[in-house]
Amino acid sequence: MTSKKVIELFYDVVSPYSWLGFEVMCRYRKVWNIELKLRPAYLAGIMQGAGNKPPGLVPNKFMYMTKDLHRLSEYFDVPLQPPSDPFEAMFQKGTLAAMRFVVAVQEREVGGDEQVEKVSRELWRRIWSEDKDITQPASLSEAAMKAGLSDSEIKEVLKLCTTKDIKDKLRSTTEDALNYGAFGFPMLVCHINGKPEMFFGSDRFELMAHCIGEKWIGPKPDKQAAKL
Amino acid sequence: MTSKKVIELFYDVVSPYSWLGFEVMCRYRKVWNIELKLRPAYLAGIMQGAGNKPPGLVPNKFMYMTKDLHRLSEYFDVPLQPPSDPFEAMFQKGTLAAMRFVVAVQEREVGGDEQVEKVSRELWRRIWSEDKDITQPASLSEAAMKAGLSDSEIKEVLKLCTTKDIKDKLRSTTEDALNYGAFGFPMLVCHINGKPEMFFGSDRFELMAHCIGEKWIGPKPDKQAAKL
Repeated sequence: MTSKKVIELFYDVVSPYSWLGFEVMCRYRKVWNIELKLRPAYLAGIMQGAGNKPPGLVPNKFMYMTKDLHRLSEYFDVPLQPPSDPFEAMFQKGTLAAMRFVVAVQEREVGGDEQVEKVSRELWRRIWSEDKDITQPASLSEAAMKAGLSDSEIKEVLKLCTTKDIKDKLRSTTEDALNYGAFGFPMLVCHINGKPEMFFGSDRFELMAHCIGEKWIGPKPDKQAAKL
Repeated sequence: MTSKKVIELFYDVVSPYSWLGFEVMCRYRKVWNIELKLRPAYLAGIMQGAGNKPPGLVPNKFMYMTKDLHRLSEYFDVPLQPPSDPFEAMFQKGTLAAMRFVVAVQEREVGGDEQVEKVSRELWRRIWSEDKDITQPASLSEAAMKAGLSDSEIKEVLKLCTTKDIKDKLRSTTEDALNYGAFGFPMLVCHINGKPEMFFGSDRFELMAHCIGEKWIGPKPDKQAAKL
């Protein structure tokens, strides 16, 4: 038995490309010999820390990204649908409360990351598929309920996510990403022979597979494997 | 016999990601049922026209791109090697003369685009592999000589590339790219059922193949095909 390669996935539910990367990695952790570490972080902190600007501020780039996401959504089989007001959803409302909530879910989950995975997915579904709020406690609770958390668990998480401990944890994960050299999300960090190798975005999977000695068979490995 | 799908490739030799895209497309035009149209254009004009900024101005992004290009160079089998002073080479010296030269080569070539392909490649090799100048007439001549042009052809091209006609042609190709919605290079425009579909960068080939009904077998289809 060879030891599993550790891959850290830094993400924020504000980012649609992170959703694509998240789903691909959640699929491939059942296919590749890897240990996936979900690292919920805060993209606005990355942009500020790295001095980067959101790509959507250039009009031609914004139009292209809308088209690109539409095509990728179908190809990756992820039900992406931009919110009616993407700028309000992404920049005015933001995801600070949502990402603290995800960190709190992770903090209290033991023996795996099923809850973190499911809650993250439900939050993406709200903002990037159903055009719903993810800033209010009621919105976060609804996502957690759909993810299978009990009422008492949700209450605990809501209490936890306003604590200094959770705020600090989100900040330190975001700092970890910056220290690796992040300037946006998703950011994947593969630990290969004790060395971190960074891959930014949701379009380096083929190259990443090559670097970790695995095989890329497209964004839907389950369906693809069935076809082979 | 089905008619070939037309794919336009907008590029500038200032851009290393364009080199990767260019080599991949030159390989795949022998594999896919496509007609590749090389569209040498001027990236600085695109950036200004689209209000975009070069990604390398964000320090973390610059460091990542250096690493990314190094890995892609090996994986794509394209001998990329950053110039010793990338900012001087890309922004201070620039590629206006070089791209006018390429357009002039294209203008006088008949019955194909072998010369345009080879001259473009030799210019990329100079700036993005051998750290050599591509602004002086002697530098352009040397590249053209390596690409197989005769002395008299080179003389003609050098004379041609200072004419209003060629300057206008480079400008109008750049405007074509902007009108398609370009904000950087490489930009690929696939004509599918009479509709243009844009793909930016050198990381959408798998998706593009899916959209045009072809199969992506990695960046080295010749070597890959031999292995199958």
